[in-house]
Amino acid sequence: MTSQPIKIVVVGGSAAGPKAAAKARRMDEHASITIIQKEADLSMASCGYPYYVGGVFDDRNQLICTSAGIVRDPNFFEKAKGIDAKVLTEAVAIDRESRTVTCKHLPTGAISTLAYDKLVIATGATPLYPPVPGADLAGIHTLHSLGDADSLRAIRDANQVQRAVIVGGGLIGFEVSEALHLAGIPTTIIEKTSSILPFLDPELAKLVANHVRGFTTDIITGNGVAAFLGEAGTLTGVKLDNGTELPCQLAVVAVGVRPNVALAKSAGLDIGAQGGIAVNEFMQTSDPDIYAAGDCVECTSLITGDKVRAPYGDLANLQGRVVGQNLIQEGSATFPGITHTGICKIFDYTVGFTGLSAGRARELGLTDIETATISGLDIPPYMQGKLLISKMVADRKTGRVLGFQCLGPGDASKRVATVAMAILGKLTVADLVNADLPYAPPYSLALDHVITAAQVLENKLLGRMQGISVAEVKQRAETGADCFILDTRTPLEFEEVRLGIGETLIPLGALRGRLAELPQDRDKEIILYCRVSLRGYEAAAILQGHGWRNVKVMEGGIMAWPYPREK
Amino acid sequence: MTSQPIKIVVVGGSAAGPKAAAKARRMDEHASITIIQKEADLSMASCGYPYYVGGVFDDRNQLICTSAGIVRDPNFFEKAKGIDAKVLTEAVAIDRESRTVTCKHLPTGAISTLAYDKLVIATGATPLYPPVPGADLAGIHTLHSLGDADSLRAIRDANQVQRAVIVGGGLIGFEVSEALHLAGIPTTIIEKTSSILPFLDPELAKLVANHVRGFTTDIITGNGVAAFLGEAGTLTGVKLDNGTELPCQLAVVAVGVRPNVALAKSAGLDIGAQGGIAVNEFMQTSDPDIYAAGDCVECTSLITGDKVRAPYGDLANLQGRVVGQNLIQEGSATFPGITHTGICKIFDYTVGFTGLSAGRARELGLTDIETATISGLDIPPYMQGKLLISKMVADRKTGRVLGFQCLGPGDASKRVATVAMAILGKLTVADLVNADLPYAPPYSLALDHVITAAQVLENKLLGRMQGISVAEVKQRAETGADCFILDTRTPLEFEEVRLGIGETLIPLGALRGRLAELPQDRDKEIILYCRVSLRGYEAAAILQGHGWRNVKVMEGGIMAWPYPREK
Ligand SMILES: Cc1cc2nc3c(=O)[nH]c(=O)nc-3n(C[C@H](O)[C@H](O)[C@H](O)COP(=O)(O)OP(=O)(O)OC[C@H]3O[C@@H](n4cnc5c(N)ncnc54)[C@H](O)[C@@H]3O)c2cc1C
Ligand SMILES: Cc1cc2nc3c(=O)[nH]c(=O)nc-3n(C[C@H](O)[C@H](O)[C@H](O)COP(=O)(O)OP(=O)(O)OC[C@H]3O[C@@H](n4cnc5c(N)ncnc54)[C@H](O)[C@@H]3O)c2cc1C
Ligand SMILES: CC(C)(COP(=O)(O)OP(=O)(O)OC[C@H]1O[C@@H](n2cnc3c(N)ncnc32)[C@H](O)[C@@H]1OP(=O)(O)O)[C@@H](O)C(=O)NCCC(=O)NCCS
Ligand SMILES: CC(C)(COP(=O)(O)OP(=O)(O)OC[C@H]1O[C@@H](n2cnc3c(N)ncnc32)[C@H](O)[C@@H]1OP(=O)(O)O)[C@@H](O)C(=O)NCCC(=O)NCCS
Ligand SMILES: [Ca+2]
Ligand SMILES: [Ca+2]
Repeated sequence: MTSQPIKIVVVGGSAAGPKAAAKARRMDEHASITIIQKEADLSMASCGYPYYVGGVFDDRNQLICTSAGIVRDPNFFEKAKGIDAKVLTEAVAIDRESRTVTCKHLPTGAISTLAYDKLVIATGATPLYPPVPGADLAGIHTLHSLGDADSLRAIRDANQVQRAVIVGGGLIGFEVSEALHLAGIPTTIIEKTSSILPFLDPELAKLVANHVRGFTTDIITGNGVAAFLGEAGTLTGVKLDNGTELPCQLAVVAVGVRPNVALAKSAGLDIGAQGGIAVNEFMQTSDPDIYAAGDCVECTSLITGDKVRAPYGDLANLQGRVVGQNLIQEGSATFPGITHTGICKIFDYTVGFTGLSAGRARELGLTDIETATISGLDIPPYMQGKLLISKMVADRKTGRVLGFQCLGPGDASKRVATVAMAILGKLTVADLVNADLPYAPPYSLALDHVITAAQVLENKLLGRMQGISVAEVKQRAETGADCFILDTRTPLEFEEVRLGIGETLIPLGALRGRLAELPQDRDKEIILYCRVSLRGYEAAAILQGHGWRNVKVMEGGIMAWPYPREK
Repeated sequence: MTSQPIKIVVVGGSAAGPKAAAKARRMDEHASITIIQKEADLSMASCGYPYYVGGVFDDRNQLICTSAGIVRDPNFFEKAKGIDAKVLTEAVAIDRESRTVTCKHLPTGAISTLAYDKLVIATGATPLYPPVPGADLAGIHTLHSLGDADSLRAIRDANQVQRAVIVGGGLIGFEVSEALHLAGIPTTIIEKTSSILPFLDPELAKLVANHVRGFTTDIITGNGVAAFLGEAGTLTGVKLDNGTELPCQLAVVAVGVRPNVALAKSAGLDIGAQGGIAVNEFMQTSDPDIYAAGDCVECTSLITGDKVRAPYGDLANLQGRVVGQNLIQEGSATFPGITHTGICKIFDYTVGFTGLSAGRARELGLTDIETATISGLDIPPYMQGKLLISKMVADRKTGRVLGFQCLGPGDASKRVATVAMAILGKLTVADLVNADLPYAPPYSLALDHVITAAQVLENKLLGRMQGISVAEVKQRAETGADCFILDTRTPLEFEEVRLGIGETLIPLGALRGRLAELPQDRDKEIILYCRVSLRGYEAAAILQGHGWRNVKVMEGGIMAWPYPREK
């Protein structure tokens, strides 16, 4: 080894940066590798902050340590990884000509210059703030940095806050709301748009909202924050666009992030149309010696081919690993793109998604799609199966699965991971209806929820089932539309719970003998459902077989009905 | 509707048969559909028997009822499905010329003849028995029919048996052993071959065996049953091939099944080389008017293209549904094949598999494969992550994933389902290393276990990591081979547990400063490991970087070591 070791500088010390550095080290024991990190900590598991804030665990070090329990501080990076990690140091400028990075040691203000052969930008993102008066009052927080987590945890431990408002009904908003609930602080979540959790179609989002309202959490949609209200510099409440004032001592803002691209931009690197640093499939910026990864970049959607921002921890690590390889062996690794896959625990629900929702697909101009919404158990009733509600989206022409949303108290995580892999494999509904999955009663139904979703979608694609959404049925009921609504459950079930939208009860088992009770006009719209709409679907097949031509199944049945019920 | 309704007869009334019948009904409300079922019950969830026997639930009806709680008896089939289900009736002959089935009503012996346009054979399988003396003693059971489940449940409830022997170390053997454990009956599992759970490679099977031995269950391998011993017609013990006698009052035989093909065979239908009824991708037998599905058929392996028998409940349902469609619309549906995916709860472990094990791949002549075994957590330590141990198998030339085994107290079910879908999609290791999965701390590590398995396998495929199996290391240690064994954990961890195979301890973080303590012969074999072999792998990269040329990582680390340890 007589050649000079390669000099690598990595800006950003949380997920993507350290991953790139660590992988580069494994690729080349002799490279000189330096991480520049603005904050005091390194390798923070940001995704764990809500659980620390909520008291799920108490040892802060758990957020920054290895599985073996070793804290990833500069000493660890030096000893275990052979990486020089400079904390409390900010990269303030990149000089691409001289290949140097100017750094500022934040405690002292000392400026230094680091030379690089290859540079990595992994500067992450910054939380957005609504541009409204009062944003500088004490009591307004975000949950983005470990410092933020420390502050919110201290607030939890101090036990002084009576009421909190969360601005933003996305993943992090809900996680924070649950954390504060665990801390005994009731919250109100404020969402400016008409629906929470933008990756869900609205009728599914409503089901989550209903679930959350069962806890000490309220949700207000279609209403943004007009101002933060305060006294003596301290937050006392939040005023909404419609004038409502919500008293609170704590507000947590979680309305999304914007990529930290200032450093890249001032170095003249290309910024993409979505506002992130532009990179190719090697995660290389417009300067071939500079790579970028994580929340600060744009990547490719494997579904649409478009450039998108996808600020997720798994992707930051995946991309960082690709960078680490290319730093040492240029062009040796690619990051093909993402499938928009994510998940979140929201109280007793798991809410997951992969690919595109129907709404998102249509926004993107993919209008020739078909969807199926189903309810069902994750495992058999005799094994204490829990409910799942899902919506699968496919391209009508090719049958290719484009998206899947899955939520409920049941094991949604497994189903979303399964379909994420199917989407990565560009599989079609026809592939999924026959999938050989791991079946045993503790783990699934004989035909797993994912397979049933695909089978129902297949039925719709083949015209064997005509579906109607809960939203459309609600509208029919409200406008007094001329349709016949049929509940196909048993009288006992009907007694326990029912929609009360003018429905008639004829149990599936009695239907063939009671066809005379149905509208004799064979073109009249008939809407059927049951608890999950399996029996509704079977009843629809019976009616179609007897000549009714306008028979629709209310997809997902009563379990997917997010509106008030009679009982 | 003036044409005669089609006449469909289905032989077999458990999974595949009723599924075909129910689907045909949905496809054609006017078809005449009859199920002929030998047993008293219909639509039995056989896979639930072990949980009923073990007392996980007490209501037998749960095994034969819908999610809405309605028992699937002949009345249900008539009313809800419009299907005539004749129980306690055996199909004794098929006349393909006249298209009739001869049936025998078992209680009365009455013979009747049913005409069909299309026939379905879904006769399932019969449990095998070892051909040894004493097999007719009272106290020897199988767990295959609901009647068997009733008997074993009665034995549990009577609380008389002190000790049981289970013949056969496959899925059902282990499920029964757990059921009997729950019933307070200690068991010994006898497996004739050298390893339990044939879908697992032996070193992983050993880990399961170790886990099981922590309960009131013993396992004996490489030793078959020579005779059942008895007194006055009643079982008193089991004698093994090696002469050992195990006293017991109960023996449960679970050594596999053979397809019920007698009816098909005597009707002159083709039987495949594997002993199952031969069908094409439409599930059509050699007579185009006769379909077959479920445990009685052979189907295609999507991995090898070979015909295989795959007696699984999910497949019976999938195949039955394909048959149901083709009964009404010939050629409208196909069953492409299976990916050998299954799962089992074994005490506190989940044990799952998809595709081929390394051993099976080699048996099939797929020798140019690479494997990676890893240990790791399913979710972060701060969320109480549990251990998983996995082995991924890929084709070396194409990188295509051929198989995945996953086991442990962690959530293996999700990982197996995920990889099953990847295998269905013919994805490669390169696809998996960048998969966008649903990540949040309650559900996975930032890089899910599946991704890590693929990344380690990629490292091996690219020659970046050289692995050595625990079995090979054990052998090295036993033969006193000339190699240097390095444990890279901390002294504290070493104090708590260690292999004691002549290893040296140098913690990863100290390694770069202690290279002088390593063998100076750069070609000497050095074997590294840690708890899971992540640090072992990092240490290997360091040594390689410093010129050692024969550096191997013991895959899966101490957690995958199934042999006795020093501590
Ligand atoms: C509360 C919370 C929960 C989350 N939950 C999930 C989840 O469940 N699942 C999921 O997939 N994702 C989740 N995420 C997102 C995930 O944490 C991020 O996608 C991931 O951290 C991005 O990693 P990164 O390295 O790109 O950026 P960051 O983690 O933001 O790290 C960038 C680092 O660079 C430093 N830096 C920036 N500029 C400079 C500079 N000029 N000089 C020196 N240092 C600099 C920053 O201080 C920061 O430490 C969550 C995020 C938060 C905040
Ligand atoms: C204890 C146990 C646990 C299991 N666990 C799992 C698991 O976890 N996962 C999994 O995937 N699979 C599991 N299986 C396998 C699964 O149950 C079978 O694959 C499935 O039942 C096969 O369905 P089938 O309809 O083909 O056959 P069967 O279920 O065997 O049904 C065939 C029916 O046909 C009847 N019959 C046969 N011949 C005639 C005739 N001539 N006339 C009339 N009737 C006839 C039989 O009496 C029987 O009721 C398990 C099986 C058992 C026994
Ligand atoms: C941890 C971190 C520094 C990356 O360092 P790293 O060394 O790449 O990560 P790990 O210590 O997990 O080691 C992973 C390596 O070990 C390998 N490995 C993991 N388990 C293994 C096993 N059982 N056997 C062999 N190798 C194994 C992996 O394949 C990987 O190597 P590769 O990339 O060369 O293939 C970086 O990911 C980080 O800072 N993470 C924390 C912050 C974070 O991720 N936040 C966002 C989400 S909350
Ligand atoms: C139950 C059994 C009789 C099959 O009857 P079935 O009517 O096909 O089954 P189900 O009642 O579950 O209904 C499934 C149908 O409803 C549809 N469906 C399920 N959930 C739905 C929902 N929420 N909305 C709309 N449709 C739904 C399915 O797609 C399927 O219809 P399709 O095949 O036309 O696509 C048969 O599988 C059986 O006997 N099973 C028990 C035994 C067994 O499986 N043993 C082995 C494993 S233990
Ligand atoms: Ca993801
Ligand atoms: Ca299976």
